[in-house]
Amino acid sequence: MENNVSRPVCILGLGLIGGSLLRVLADAGRPAYGYNRSTTTVAHARAAGYDASPDPAQVLARAADDDAVIVLATPVPALAAMVAAVAEHAPGCLLTDVVSVKEEVARIVAAGHPGARYVGGHPMAGTAHSGWDATDPALFTGAMWMVSTHDDTDPADWLAVAGIARAAGAYVVPAANDAHDRAVAAISHNPHLTAAVTASAGAGESALALRLAAGSFRDGTRVAGTAPELQRAMLEGNATALLNVLSETIDRLTAARDALREHGSVEVVVDDGHRARKAYEAVALAAPEPIEGVTVGDDGWARELRRQAHRARVWTD
Amino acid sequence: MENNVSRPVCILGLGLIGGSLLRVLADAGRPAYGYNRSTTTVAHARAAGYDASPDPAQVLARAADDDAVIVLATPVPALAAMVAAVAEHAPGCLLTDVVSVKEEVARIVAAGHPGARYVGGHPMAGTAHSGWDATDPALFTGAMWMVSTHDDTDPADWLAVAGIARAAGAYVVPAANDAHDRAVAAISHNPHLTAAVTASAGAGESALALRLAAGSFRDGTRVAGTAPELQRAMLEGNATALLNVLSETIDRLTAARDALREHGSVEVVVDDGHRARKAYEAVALAAPEPIEGVTVGDDGWARELRRQAHRARVWTD
Repeated sequence: MENNVSRPVCILGLGLIGGSLLRVLADAGRPAYGYNRSTTTVAHARAAGYDASPDPAQVLARAADDDAVIVLATPVPALAAMVAAVAEHAPGCLLTDVVSVKEEVARIVAAGHPGARYVGGHPMAGTAHSGWDATDPALFTGAMWMVSTHDDTDPADWLAVAGIARAAGAYVVPAANDAHDRAVAAISHNPHLTAAVTASAGAGESALALRLAAGSFRDGTRVAGTAPELQRAMLEGNATALLNVLSETIDRLTAARDALREHGSVEVVVDDGHRARKAYEAVALAAPEPIEGVTVGDDGWARELRRQAHRARVWTD
Repeated sequence: MENNVSRPVCILGLGLIGGSLLRVLADAGRPAYGYNRSTTTVAHARAAGYDASPDPAQVLARAADDDAVIVLATPVPALAAMVAAVAEHAPGCLLTDVVSVKEEVARIVAAGHPGARYVGGHPMAGTAHSGWDATDPALFTGAMWMVSTHDDTDPADWLAVAGIARAAGAYVVPAANDAHDRAVAAISHNPHLTAAVTASAGAGESALALRLAAGSFRDGTRVAGTAPELQRAMLEGNATALLNVLSETIDRLTAARDALREHGSVEVVVDDGHRARKAYEAVALAAPEPIEGVTVGDDGWARELRRQAHRARVWTD
């Protein structure tokens, strides 16, 4: 197994997530460098003291040479070209990604680089802002970082990817790609849609309504302000899982409308929502419990990690 | 016209809104006192140096004696009993309220105190917390405070109520009761329902989903944590307006589902939501423009205040 503490990391894409990852790793003294197609972004990264290049072939040749872990950090539409470049210039390197859907990325990797050593990842961190200027080396501190954990995942590769998440300050959440995609549809992608329609219904009412808008509207519609192309790439890349939770959301709102119209009551929807919010707070506000009693690589390790993660535990080794 | 700067204010109900109002007025040296049925709340208010009593007849006799403006600040279910007490003990006093719906409160006042001098109000301020311990004299600083503004509103009474809002640090938003109720259905009550179903859909998915939940879920479901009985009183008291905006919300989500299922696209819902959020930010983040060129009491003053408020202006005189 490679020495995961000093192994170089090569980051393809230096936006909010990729750029923040480059900064936190380099700041901690780990060999880390990145590629971005925008020479402006590269100039900003270099001016801040980071190792960045606008030449993908050169960056990938370097990654092949020093056995770097390659991190795909571009938006979904640019992934296929990036994967093709990896297959050409650094086919033997371990590959991970930080994209918000996992099954689609796995398909893109399998199609463009069939022999890839690939272990997906997804840090649950972000803001409504994007680009290098929004980067923050503390972005991942205490955040959850999903790492793809399947029965055929190579343990050494898994440890290398999980080690990057830990080095960035995050907790590791082991999960299968399909379970991850269902989960983020429910807690991230669907909230983008409910924020969007809540914003539209409010702004469509009147300027008086926007004038009276206070905390519930401000917080409830915040993510609707995210760049539309980023939202679309994320949501459309997870269409199947999102359709399921969106249908459930419509069903719940329709039941609320019927109860309000027929009985003048919103008791069920309000009580259910209150209970759900309190369940979230119980998970989110407490220190996460660590996964225990399993060594990565032992028989059944991946299944056991997933089982404990489904009880909201995190990997912290 | 009374001297609105030194005129006493009598507040019935010392929860988050009423208690914060008592504090900000008394802190500024204005004669202000309050009633609360809970002796614990009264003891806490007194211990903090405020003038509070658990005896409604005594408090209202005092209000009648010193010509105080009476502020109804109890939840909707307790209003009818409060209005009856006002009719009995202080029938000549000017009456206002701080309740989040206006047509229903106007009905309750008209039913229980037919001759009342009543000008409704609604400060757009609150938190997910409630009760005296959550009160904050700065709660209304810079907030919007709707004041009922109809063609038959008495100008002196209107100025007395608007003056309380200004003394609390708020901007005054003049509006008709029905326009207010439609507006708050769109920017407050509907967001409570979308937050509730978003929370339920997320928590219902899995503990893994709650573990991965980050900013979009945290902010988008925040108000679902408000005490259910307060949410119910607010939403069920505005059922007609809420049903309209809720139906629109369901329609928008259904259109989004159809577009995603049939064309793999969320372009329309995301673009509409983004535009709406930016429209909100343009209104909320800029300093509000003042209403100009109208003197309260002049011919057509109420209509002109409403007209300018519908262009997002505020009264600051």
